[in-house]
Amino acid sequence: MGVKERKQRERSEVREKILDAALDFFATEGHEGVTMRALADAIEYTPPVIYSHFRDKDAIIRELCNRQLRTLAKSFGPIAAVPDPVERLRGIGRAYVDFALEHPSHFRFMFLTAHPLPTGEDDNLHRGDPQEDAYAFLKHTVEAAIASGQLRPEYSDAEELTQMCWAAAHGVVALQNVKGSDTWVDWRDTRTTAHKLLDAVLRGIVREPARARLTSTPRGQGRKKGSARA
Amino acid sequence: MGVKERKQRERSEVREKILDAALDFFATEGHEGVTMRALADAIEYTPPVIYSHFRDKDAIIRELCNRQLRTLAKSFGPIAAVPDPVERLRGIGRAYVDFALEHPSHFRFMFLTAHPLPTGEDDNLHRGDPQEDAYAFLKHTVEAAIASGQLRPEYSDAEELTQMCWAAAHGVVALQNVKGSDTWVDWRDTRTTAHKLLDAVLRGIVREPARARLTSTPRGQGRKKGSARA
Repeated sequence: MGVKERKQRERSEVREKILDAALDFFATEGHEGVTMRALADAIEYTPPVIYSHFRDKDAIIRELCNRQLRTLAKSFGPIAAVPDPVERLRGIGRAYVDFALEHPSHFRFMFLTAHPLPTGEDDNLHRGDPQEDAYAFLKHTVEAAIASGQLRPEYSDAEELTQMCWAAAHGVVALQNVKGSDTWVDWRDTRTTAHKLLDAVLRGIVREPARARLTSTPRGQGRKKGSARA
Repeated sequence: MGVKERKQRERSEVREKILDAALDFFATEGHEGVTMRALADAIEYTPPVIYSHFRDKDAIIRELCNRQLRTLAKSFGPIAAVPDPVERLRGIGRAYVDFALEHPSHFRFMFLTAHPLPTGEDDNLHRGDPQEDAYAFLKHTVEAAIASGQLRPEYSDAEELTQMCWAAAHGVVALQNVKGSDTWVDWRDTRTTAHKLLDAVLRGIVREPARARLTSTPRGQGRKKGSARA
């Protein structure tokens, strides 16, 4: 390995370390009112090092959001092999729930906290690429589900249905993350409740014949795509 | 009116004014790290006046949460007259969505922000009373829906289904509140998306014969409770 390659690798390692540390810091401390100086102190990199990677705090937040979207998109990866797009929607919803439960503070930072707009020129996520952008992956799958003819006609706007599916996966884990330690609610198991809500939504968006199939056969057992075309 | 009554009325007016001002303050500034002194400065009451009503900041937060639950429960009031419990669930979901859209900062404070536990002895909400406690109202309606025999057998745990229904109403408005100004999503109309998600969930939890009825007849048209008992 040449000197240039080594330097580049080291530089990208430092960049990742800054991001890791910043994510932990924001997840516990919030991000409002935090200066680059305070961030530098907390994550043990000097401001010049941080500035050599990120122009400002917003650039770090932007890159953290993009990285989370990439991580989530990667966790969706194996789902792409499931033949039935409606089953893929169920898989995506469950992966989102897993992400929220396994990384509660990252989930809170990413999906329960308002951030500055990620519109900078330094935004290096390939928007719309399902490999990198979890929203694009979901929308792609929604489009396949619509094209398969399994859905009721009122769910034909892919963008709207993508937002519905996201919200269906989001509802239970969002409430749990924020209100889960409130004792005035006798909370049931989060994952079970979230899965049951996803099941209800998918049952509610498919046409009758496809629905009968979803109800009577076990889930995701190598069913062929479009086999229940209505 | 006697002196005692007048004093009591004035006292309760001041209490409400403190709560209104505190809600606005927390909704815009957050509540973490805020001292009673800072709160007093911001809302223009002296600390002694505030302390004469509330022991500490947590007591204010607790009472604000209770007041919001009461407001929400009141907005559910007219829904109690709808005969079909499944239609009542739809009405409750829609009222929750309206609340979130009409009072975004209060919604954020109440349902998108973690608070200290509301377990103080000064907790004066009548928990479990549907007139005061929005969660109890929802659960009460869920129980009626289960008892009507319209729901699929897997949705027989009232507590779990209450949390599912809450999450179904919560998902879209929660995402919209936090991510609604993110330009990387081509957001559709929040209310429409939220209503469509609620419709899908209700369609997904009812048994087949009841579902056919829900699909073929207009909503909430004076249908009799239990008329579609499966």
